Amino acid sequence: MTLAAVAKEAGVSLPTVSKVLNGRSDVSPVTRAKVEQLLKVHGYRRRHHGAPPSPLVELVFHELDSIWAMEIIRGVETVAKANKATVVLTESGTRHAPAPGWIEGVLRRRPLGVVLVFSSLPEDVKRQLRSRSIPFVIIDPAGDPDPDVPSVGSANWAGGLAATRHLTGHRHERVAIITGPEDMLCSLARLDGYRSAMAMAGLETDPRLVRFGDFHVQGGFTHAMDLLDGPDRPTAIFAGSDLQALGVLEAARLKGLSVPEDLSVVGYDDVPLAQWSSPPLTTVHQPLRHMAEEAARMLLAPDDPGKAAQRIELATRLVVRQSTARRRGA
Amino acid sequence: MTLAAVAKEAGVSLPTVSKVLNGRSDVSPVTRAKVEQLLKVHGYRRRHHGAPPSPLVELVFHELDSIWAMEIIRGVETVAKANKATVVLTESGTRHAPAPGWIEGVLRRRPLGVVLVFSSLPEDVKRQLRSRSIPFVIIDPAGDPDPDVPSVGSANWAGGLAATRHLTGHRHERVAIITGPEDMLCSLARLDGYRSAMAMAGLETDPRLVRFGDFHVQGGFTHAMDLLDGPDRPTAIFAGSDLQALGVLEAARLKGLSVPEDLSVVGYDDVPLAQWSSPPLTTVHQPLRHMAEEAARMLLAPDDPGKAAQRIELATRLVVRQSTARRRGA
Repeated sequence: MTLAAVAKEAGVSLPTVSKVLNGRSDVSPVTRAKVEQLLKVHGYRRRHHGAPPSPLVELVFHELDSIWAMEIIRGVETVAKANKATVVLTESGTRHAPAPGWIEGVLRRRPLGVVLVFSSLPEDVKRQLRSRSIPFVIIDPAGDPDPDVPSVGSANWAGGLAATRHLTGHRHERVAIITGPEDMLCSLARLDGYRSAMAMAGLETDPRLVRFGDFHVQGGFTHAMDLLDGPDRPTAIFAGSDLQALGVLEAARLKGLSVPEDLSVVGYDDVPLAQWSSPPLTTVHQPLRHMAEEAARMLLAPDDPGKAAQRIELATRLVVRQSTARRRGA
Repeated sequence: MTLAAVAKEAGVSLPTVSKVLNGRSDVSPVTRAKVEQLLKVHGYRRRHHGAPPSPLVELVFHELDSIWAMEIIRGVETVAKANKATVVLTESGTRHAPAPGWIEGVLRRRPLGVVLVFSSLPEDVKRQLRSRSIPFVIIDPAGDPDPDVPSVGSANWAGGLAATRHLTGHRHERVAIITGPEDMLCSLARLDGYRSAMAMAGLETDPRLVRFGDFHVQGGFTHAMDLLDGPDRPTAIFAGSDLQALGVLEAARLKGLSVPEDLSVVGYDDVPLAQWSSPPLTTVHQPLRHMAEEAARMLLAPDDPGKAAQRIELATRLVVRQSTARRRGA
């Protein structure tokens, strides 16, 4: 299948087909759609014998608000720099698909590859990238990967297990969890890790001590204010994210409880601020920067460029700081 | 002065001159230097009658480690998106100049403009950008602008004054300051604001209560451990950065002092984590995102594109949260 044949079938010139391939804006939407359709029908794939791609790596966030964004940017930047490439940053604006026009920009820039954070891609966008031989990979800490796209995640279940075992190992019996939103697989995986650790310690899981949060400070605060109200309060809370843990610390302060003397708190993520809280947070290290490096490496320095879509899960590990201690009196 | 004349004088072809102008790598270093020299001698300036620049904004950090980086990225991204431009992110690696090779990448990409964070630029790089009509602006929270480059800063003296007046207004008399490094103008401006506020309240400034920090948590912690040692301790500390304030909070915790009951603490910057500390920090809001937006706007939507280098200083303001209170017994 040659581009000349596509041009002929579409009734346009070869340069016009080339413009569509390269995301140029001076093509009518109708012509663009017609050419894209023919590229799709014929399963066109650009081979690298024309101009080489630009030394750019596209990094796409759906929102830069995330406390994780900086770690991810630094990870991608490190690998990009080592490969003499530059990072192009875009904020797609929605969780589920890049904004219209985004893909034209990518096709025009002809990057070495695209790293998407936490996003899924519509089928037609995947197809457009594939037809131009632009590889892409998803950084997916939420643990819900698109099966036909390479992705990098981390071991959420094991993280939840490690956090909770640390608490039961310190003789805590009433251990609460504020995990993430109910519709995210990572929340469920961490909760299951918690349940397994409780069972391994021979402890009942009190359903009143299981909460679904929002991964933000406020969610942690609100649930902790409620959990810490009353005589039957937990002596330890696994907060499911560092932000939620900060909310728990603030709730404890307002309730007059000392951390870790009266209440042990474990976070999740190990974002930089976790070491700066008072007291510094015990937390599960999610290797965000390493995940980002791995994702960029899958694009820029693949072990086996011909390999099909793959999923990599990096290990999490518990970082013990000063927000956890043996249960008082235990 | 035409490019043809430059080509003739350099003894190279016109396309070679064009390659140098566009940062292409397939030119020998000797030829590049010769052509650049002639462009300099003749004061060449590209006029925009050729291909338009790419819809890119270059954002250059000397290090992405800064806790400010995310706010700045978001500010630039917001304005870039509103102007249908995309952000290219580079980490220059040193405080004083972008890495070699960086400028070739910029010339090749032909961006709409360059935003530099906290960096100064060597003369030859400024000249190269100017000769290609690529505008640039420096975000300079340190308050030490290069006089011939447009820059955006904020009002450091006024910030130091407001923080200290807030404390003296709460009847604190022994007020310590941990400002930034001695060699940064912003540190000195904040310190002078502190001194003026103390004088306005009719208070002596005890030289033992004036410290130069490093703007990091550890510096705040170390100075606070020392300041809080002994009976003559301050009842309030103006920490000069939020990170230093977190170090002060941790020192207070270890000393068994409650904030704000026993010790009032004011930070500086109002980075996002300032509202998440326990207690939430009273701090001076440095409008980083707004500064970044302003810088991007100077490039992408200038009020007066012909205007010479300018300096904009945005206002700082005190944000009162829960780490400050009236001096006990006052």
